[in-house]
Amino acid sequence: MKTTEAQLIQKLRHAASKPGFKSGIALGIGDDAALFAPRVGYQTILTCDWFLEETHFVRRLHPPDSVGWKSLARAVSDIAAMGGQPRCFLLSLALPEDLTGRWLDEFLGGLRRASRKLHCVLAGGDTTRQKKILINITVVGEVRRNQAILRSGAKPGDLIYVSGRLGEADLGLQLLRRKTQIAKSDPALRKHLYPEPRLALAQWLAESRIPTAMMDLSDGLSTDLPRLCEASKAGAILEGFKIPKISVPKWSSRKTPDSLELALDGGDDYELLFTVPARKTNLLPRAFKGLPLTAIGKITAGRSIQLAQPDGKTKPLESAGWDPFRT
Amino acid sequence: MKTTEAQLIQKLRHAASKPGFKSGIALGIGDDAALFAPRVGYQTILTCDWFLEETHFVRRLHPPDSVGWKSLARAVSDIAAMGGQPRCFLLSLALPEDLTGRWLDEFLGGLRRASRKLHCVLAGGDTTRQKKILINITVVGEVRRNQAILRSGAKPGDLIYVSGRLGEADLGLQLLRRKTQIAKSDPALRKHLYPEPRLALAQWLAESRIPTAMMDLSDGLSTDLPRLCEASKAGAILEGFKIPKISVPKWSSRKTPDSLELALDGGDDYELLFTVPARKTNLLPRAFKGLPLTAIGKITAGRSIQLAQPDGKTKPLESAGWDPFRT
Repeated sequence: MKTTEAQLIQKLRHAASKPGFKSGIALGIGDDAALFAPRVGYQTILTCDWFLEETHFVRRLHPPDSVGWKSLARAVSDIAAMGGQPRCFLLSLALPEDLTGRWLDEFLGGLRRASRKLHCVLAGGDTTRQKKILINITVVGEVRRNQAILRSGAKPGDLIYVSGRLGEADLGLQLLRRKTQIAKSDPALRKHLYPEPRLALAQWLAESRIPTAMMDLSDGLSTDLPRLCEASKAGAILEGFKIPKISVPKWSSRKTPDSLELALDGGDDYELLFTVPARKTNLLPRAFKGLPLTAIGKITAGRSIQLAQPDGKTKPLESAGWDPFRT
Repeated sequence: MKTTEAQLIQKLRHAASKPGFKSGIALGIGDDAALFAPRVGYQTILTCDWFLEETHFVRRLHPPDSVGWKSLARAVSDIAAMGGQPRCFLLSLALPEDLTGRWLDEFLGGLRRASRKLHCVLAGGDTTRQKKILINITVVGEVRRNQAILRSGAKPGDLIYVSGRLGEADLGLQLLRRKTQIAKSDPALRKHLYPEPRLALAQWLAESRIPTAMMDLSDGLSTDLPRLCEASKAGAILEGFKIPKISVPKWSSRKTPDSLELALDGGDDYELLFTVPARKTNLLPRAFKGLPLTAIGKITAGRSIQLAQPDGKTKPLESAGWDPFRT
């Protein structure tokens, strides 16, 4: 039996039902558009993200539940990057006809879990049929006026911090690709499949007004740090040995991934990258709710981005993270 | 020379520059997300729309300039449908590498013209590379609190109105597909390639509080009217001879399209469909700024949707408009 668009929308409407919190949605799925009631004293944050089969995920490798979770989580990470709170989202979904049954149900299951966990309600969207799975998610968030942390505020002398450990999600992807038996609970695999945007930390940082600039790490430190520096019209020096890396047990069959390479170039970590004036570093805890915060370098005058080696020498940092137009 | 994502974003940033009106954009392209300053006393309207190669347009038939214009115009039409004003939009664009030159420039030209005409500013987006052109546009609009016109307010006895003439855009598509020489100024062709959402009429209707329900006609009257009736838990009777149709000169080579079929089933008109209580019809002009407003039927109790024939008999209206999952 074929699924009509109306039936598909009915499934989405069901997945959007009953958020257990005040969402701001005055009118949800089923009209020409959704209505959202913005809070007085807040700015609205707007972001959208592609999540496309073969580009961002692979049908035979990624469980539909993870595709649902991650499509929302990664878009919400851009709200975290501004120091904001997510409020609602629009889902644009294009699917092959034969995935409108079980695949869609599992996808919506993951999406719904993310929606509840991240306090971000499905408010509307658009659906159509395609050969490949196409997902686009727009997230609407809010931040108190003048409290958003931009990429552009870093000043020479500021220390560069990251949350968590870098490279873990990329290791998870490599484990998934190896197709050997991996425990579902493997932390690297979980970080790749079910990333958690650093909302609580980001909101605390925004309220504290400690950081001068902030962004999320989606494409890898070596690609994202230059973006922050570009926006701030500054350079940076990273100290490779300070970057919080993961330890990778030796692989038998292939070359074991290098921890530093993973940390510099691995994408999809959704950790926060932020800068703090030297005089304010003492206001920053070493960890926020168990999540380590680590100084990994310094913002510099000039525009070069350098990586300091263990021997004290520096070399230019090469951007080798994710750029769809560079491959 | 290959285009990097940064270069592509630079092109988009240029296309977004200098709106000649107060846009509400506090932070545009280049950060993790955009910041929008909502107006006090207004609700935010949110809508998104797919515009996909082969599904919604064809690369060899549709000029890139039209793809740019139409991708925004059709999404803005959903803002009009609520009685609102567009404010800004997010562009998600996926392109083949070889279209990042001239095709992209012409696309952005059309998009920019629409952006200026519709007073809707590019605030951000996401870009990636794909084999086919994928476009998704999110439009953010505003409407005064309690002034949005929903689909759900129609009551039995209300008269059903449409703006303009129906079926013209579908005729334009058929002309385009025939590939004979068509004047670029042909009104049907222009309506298909460069539709104009009925913003001024919609805002006047919202302020007047005359309509009980409203939506835009994107998929054809025979598909869209049932949606309005479904939302309003009502039925309808349409009078076929009252529907404002276009006259189609006889075609020599193929069967000439039927005016009534075009008006009932043709998509992409982006006219407004709205309902008015009988006692308020005298408040409605026959035309708004030259655009005819025509009563074409009545909302009824019960749930059936009927089409009255010239002989006075009625038959159920068959939905034959656009449903991507029905084909």
